[in-house]
Amino acid sequence: MSGEGLDAVGRGGAGRVHALEVMKFGVGGVVSALDLVAEEEPLLIRLGYGAVEAREERNLAVTMRTPGNDVELAAGFVFSEGVVRERGDIVSGRVCGREGSGNVVRVELAVGVEWDAARLARNFYASSSCGICGKASIEAVGVVCGRGRMPLGGRVDARILGGLPARLREAQGVFERTGGLHAAGVFGVGGDFRCLREDVGRHNAVDKVLGYRLMSGEGEEGDFLVLSGRISFELVQKAIAGGFGMVAALGAPSGGAARLAEAFGVTLVGFLREDRWNVYSGIERLNLQGL
Amino acid sequence: MSGEGLDAVGRGGAGRVHALEVMKFGVGGVVSALDLVAEEEPLLIRLGYGAVEAREERNLAVTMRTPGNDVELAAGFVFSEGVVRERGDIVSGRVCGREGSGNVVRVELAVGVEWDAARLARNFYASSSCGICGKASIEAVGVVCGRGRMPLGGRVDARILGGLPARLREAQGVFERTGGLHAAGVFGVGGDFRCLREDVGRHNAVDKVLGYRLMSGEGEEGDFLVLSGRISFELVQKAIAGGFGMVAALGAPSGGAARLAEAFGVTLVGFLREDRWNVYSGIERLNLQGL
Repeated sequence: MSGEGLDAVGRGGAGRVHALEVMKFGVGGVVSALDLVAEEEPLLIRLGYGAVEAREERNLAVTMRTPGNDVELAAGFVFSEGVVRERGDIVSGRVCGREGSGNVVRVELAVGVEWDAARLARNFYASSSCGICGKASIEAVGVVCGRGRMPLGGRVDARILGGLPARLREAQGVFERTGGLHAAGVFGVGGDFRCLREDVGRHNAVDKVLGYRLMSGEGEEGDFLVLSGRISFELVQKAIAGGFGMVAALGAPSGGAARLAEAFGVTLVGFLREDRWNVYSGIERLNLQGL
Repeated sequence: MSGEGLDAVGRGGAGRVHALEVMKFGVGGVVSALDLVAEEEPLLIRLGYGAVEAREERNLAVTMRTPGNDVELAAGFVFSEGVVRERGDIVSGRVCGREGSGNVVRVELAVGVEWDAARLARNFYASSSCGICGKASIEAVGVVCGRGRMPLGGRVDARILGGLPARLREAQGVFERTGGLHAAGVFGVGGDFRCLREDVGRHNAVDKVLGYRLMSGEGEEGDFLVLSGRISFELVQKAIAGGFGMVAALGAPSGGAARLAEAFGVTLVGFLREDRWNVYSGIERLNLQGL
């Protein structure tokens, strides 16, 4: 059952899907078939920084990700982890894989952008959580993200919520084929589709969205995040970093996610289905008229 | 929608579930209700090491996890990351949270156990992947885990596979309530249930299983891992570290997971359902008679 590289399938990224010879067991017996699996490879995020005449370089992080939108992923990562605060902090991001792997992205910081390697190293010990007790974690998010309570901004029409799962799936070419990718989508207050990114790692999908918005400057007041899976503390942290006042997910939130959302005034919707959903915090952002 | 701490639910761990006031929208309108969410808090894993007269201490990792089985989680983490290789390398593991948080576990290494802080720091940059290109990653797993190809060992009766999803759910008290926890279970070649651990993070669930088996010495030849979700590269890496020759999961494997399993002779079963499943590698470990 060796892997056979076939052409990539899906829009907007090369090499995201791979065909494998697989033995399928079922009621009709067993058949050998080609099965599509989501690709997963490590990406090294490298930082260039320092004065013009003395640039320094540092390997920042390695993350297992679905290839595609790698510069966005790297930009979103340094943004959501608090290394940069705004578009102007990044001069460029480019794929510079040695040995032809393409699995390295170098993010060039603008001259004068300072970042705290020590804090970051501590953060990156494991999946970018911060602090030890839950309360310290929540306070740390404000420091890392440079944000306080989310302003109420544009209110979201609650009547559009039920339609979002189908629209997210619609936008996911790859998901239908492999069943293996997480999606993060952005929609406007009235339900307009803005963008969607996918990855084997749910945090990567959100980082890609953040990086895309940061680098392109796109985004309008009230835009919110729709996730295909469950909501962890880390995902709410990234949503706050990205300035999203609302996160709606098809899956369940964790307790930590709900507390963090509550603390920052983020509207948290979970178990989103066509005909029902739960609101865990920030219901004031939803326009319930006509529901 | 503030959180209200209620009694923990479920066996084998305190504080794994939390009740939140939530607004439930559905066809019948909107109701306020208490909803159970899975708890999620950071755990700091601290290492004690060095000579008797000069013990040193090092903060090793912070991971967001579901409280419960924390010593197992810490032990499994240091084991699957290659800090320790066997039970005798660990003198003790104990919860030693300051400020009463209980969110710190200190793992005491035996005198003489050497570990490579530099390699580890590099590994922990992000979720414990290693190397840059896919091939380097696969080779690195062997070094980290200190393992080569998995011996064939006991063969697994394929007739038991279809029953595993139901048996995994049965063993998951918490899952039924929150929908938010990943499960990792261990079964024997004939289908005997061995143990199960849960967590908001799928890698943590597997680390808990690994830590439990390492510390208790339990486990028989041919035991295999059953996972409630998808299979990433990292999960196959942990399975190899734990000596499992087979991983069966309800979800899809990633391409990296399939390649790693193939390289180490691990039997990989995905999309496991009552009446069908796919075998991605290592079919020779399955006993197909009577199917």
